[in-house]
Amino acid sequence: MPPIKPHTLSGFMELLPEEQTMMQRLMDTLRQSYALYGFTPLDTPVIEAADVLLAKGGGETEKQIYRFQKGDSDLALRFDLTVPLAKYVALHCNELTFPFRRYQIGKVYRGERAQRGRFREFYQADIDVIGDGKLDIMNEAEIPAVIYRTFHALGLDRFRIRVNNRKVLNGFFAILGLTEQAGDVMRTVDKLEKIGPDKVRAILIEDFAVPAAAADELLSFLSCPGSSAEKLSFLETYRGRNEVFDAGLTELATVVNYMDAFGVPEANFEVDLTIARGLDYYTGTVYETVLTDHPEIGSVCSGGRYDNLAEYYTDRTLPGVGISIGVTRLFYVLQEQKMLSGEILTAPADAVVIPMGADCLPFAVETATVLRTAGVRTQVYFEERKFKQKIGFADRSGIPFALIIGGDEAAEGVAGVKDMTTGEQRKLAPADAAEHILAALEARKNCRVIED
Amino acid sequence: MPPIKPHTLSGFMELLPEEQTMMQRLMDTLRQSYALYGFTPLDTPVIEAADVLLAKGGGETEKQIYRFQKGDSDLALRFDLTVPLAKYVALHCNELTFPFRRYQIGKVYRGERAQRGRFREFYQADIDVIGDGKLDIMNEAEIPAVIYRTFHALGLDRFRIRVNNRKVLNGFFAILGLTEQAGDVMRTVDKLEKIGPDKVRAILIEDFAVPAAAADELLSFLSCPGSSAEKLSFLETYRGRNEVFDAGLTELATVVNYMDAFGVPEANFEVDLTIARGLDYYTGTVYETVLTDHPEIGSVCSGGRYDNLAEYYTDRTLPGVGISIGVTRLFYVLQEQKMLSGEILTAPADAVVIPMGADCLPFAVETATVLRTAGVRTQVYFEERKFKQKIGFADRSGIPFALIIGGDEAAEGVAGVKDMTTGEQRKLAPADAAEHILAALEARKNCRVIED
Repeated sequence: MPPIKPHTLSGFMELLPEEQTMMQRLMDTLRQSYALYGFTPLDTPVIEAADVLLAKGGGETEKQIYRFQKGDSDLALRFDLTVPLAKYVALHCNELTFPFRRYQIGKVYRGERAQRGRFREFYQADIDVIGDGKLDIMNEAEIPAVIYRTFHALGLDRFRIRVNNRKVLNGFFAILGLTEQAGDVMRTVDKLEKIGPDKVRAILIEDFAVPAAAADELLSFLSCPGSSAEKLSFLETYRGRNEVFDAGLTELATVVNYMDAFGVPEANFEVDLTIARGLDYYTGTVYETVLTDHPEIGSVCSGGRYDNLAEYYTDRTLPGVGISIGVTRLFYVLQEQKMLSGEILTAPADAVVIPMGADCLPFAVETATVLRTAGVRTQVYFEERKFKQKIGFADRSGIPFALIIGGDEAAEGVAGVKDMTTGEQRKLAPADAAEHILAALEARKNCRVIED
Repeated sequence: MPPIKPHTLSGFMELLPEEQTMMQRLMDTLRQSYALYGFTPLDTPVIEAADVLLAKGGGETEKQIYRFQKGDSDLALRFDLTVPLAKYVALHCNELTFPFRRYQIGKVYRGERAQRGRFREFYQADIDVIGDGKLDIMNEAEIPAVIYRTFHALGLDRFRIRVNNRKVLNGFFAILGLTEQAGDVMRTVDKLEKIGPDKVRAILIEDFAVPAAAADELLSFLSCPGSSAEKLSFLETYRGRNEVFDAGLTELATVVNYMDAFGVPEANFEVDLTIARGLDYYTGTVYETVLTDHPEIGSVCSGGRYDNLAEYYTDRTLPGVGISIGVTRLFYVLQEQKMLSGEILTAPADAVVIPMGADCLPFAVETATVLRTAGVRTQVYFEERKFKQKIGFADRSGIPFALIIGGDEAAEGVAGVKDMTTGEQRKLAPADAAEHILAALEARKNCRVIED
């Protein structure tokens, strides 16, 4: 009996090879899409000094954080990528060029109660644009374009990017005379989709002393129907009554008006006045992204504008706008919903070279070298087994092409190239085999991760 | 005054954007090269149960490990990628196809004493081939090919892959009657390059009671000169005196004889009988890789054959062969030695679109959308600044092309495309600009990370 039972901690995703290949394709797509918008890749330590990570302190964060001593050091694992970014920008601000655009895809840690679909270690994929002192509203208008191109590149078409503006909400609360309860009202409004308008109304009136008329006007405001343009027209009817509202409305209109130039189709974008995105962090445009056919999943890509990224580390004002994709959760959901493409090539190789005996080994190796030089991902099956077991290996591992090399083939300088899907076999010289395989697999290599 | 001074822990690498882009190119090259040999990507948790990680226990590992409690769980951060692989293979062995070939590039943690060039968090890039029950020697012969192609793809030409075989060493120790002291002798031999033959001789004789004649024969054996073929001929003179030696020699000869078929040039490969690679783990071929012009760096890629990957977790015999690159240290050394290519494009974008005023903003955004769709990594400079500051942004951020769009250009549907290196400027429609930029940058995008 071996001394230790191997196991992986609960709440920690560990994928089988085929799944992992799919996950990597997904993350590569994110990287490429983010890079197209001029975001630079960043990597920061997983471990930071606890006082740095917890500078803001309090709340859920402190309870969930992985924190420990090592020697005299009080350390913690990052629980998001935003706090490390704040530290990074504050620390290196004299070496960075602003606006600073970075993406980061990395693991973060939260010791949440373990349950299905909840992870304690998970990847986030973030982008942020950080300004020095100020940051133009056009940066907020560009974010939906990044979201659109990214999800489109992943293979999704049926999704909606919902935007709102916190100034519009706060301004409207002020118009209704609810400035004092703004936090509570915002929090309650955030539950609208979950608990419905009747319960929201009841909570507003009973718990937070909102006058019935104000609650009604608020709910009617939030449920304003129509296209984004129609919602803007509706909001215009309130213009002139509150400065914050007016500023927010102008911003929101700018965002909406540039969607076309940014290449975002109307079907994938809408103004949604109910989007609030929590309480104290966001100050301008806020974003959520929902899958049209799976609203139950909630938002798969969210974020917004904030006015001061790094106030705990520096006196410099660093406003920014950013979004985050919870990659591990997204992958989990896509798997659950069977939305991952069956076309994607998840085998460890494109081809496996199978020498039939020791005498054909040198030619088999040469063939593999030619294939690799041509860019074909190639294994050689070196183990001494019966032919059936050798060809069975190609089958089991899902490798799409087997190159069978016996004495005759080696003497002729060719391989029996077998398409494992169709069973079709043809004799080809190594260089021709490489070309044949690359051409046959091109479509599968370019196919998108998600089948919508 | 902000409450917290931002800082990054000592021993934790945190790169500036240009450096990070270079690092990412380096890691992408590793991934592509490993994939060409049919290794599948793997990702395992950074945190594991401490009893799993420390199954083998003892030694330096236990002292250096980051270990902590969370709730009732005794947890630890992985200190290499081999133990998690052993756990993974033992745990999932019924779902894997053998030989199982995986690569993994990930962060590992060791609480070493902090000093220049030593890291507590660092990337390793590992490949391993794991057999079920047995694994053919040809898998060992293939490893130098992976090393060669990988370092060549990185841009290095002047490096040598040194191989030896532990059975040859152990067999030779037996021939000399040193089997009992084999461990001590191996450890002493490992220091040959560092302390020289005289000191090794003295230690062998004085500390480990090796007879002077045996010590002399061992040192003369180890310093055997000549090409790999000549060394093999020399070793053949000992054949027939010890079974383990004979088996090792046959293996070593197989490895050497296949180098040509695997495409490894003679200049990059040699048999080196002094390579021992530590004590108790490796059982067959062992590998080291040194930069010809920087022997002081030591081996940048090492590994070997082992007989039982996962004995602490399973009764199944899982022999394997693998190598590891210490990526963080390699990157650090390449930086120190100024070996990173100056040609590599490390800017966050290929082009920055600069609208001169609010009226040309829509056309500027449309231009950016066209560029991105064509695959040009594009930023738009949205901030309201003077022209000099706008063009200064392109300069400071190293973005190679600026597309200047004033009212005239917007009306004409063109951009003033400025090559920031030459200062040359021409008016082009967005699609033509995209083509022009992609063509101009092709060489820099394909250039290798290292200048040898």
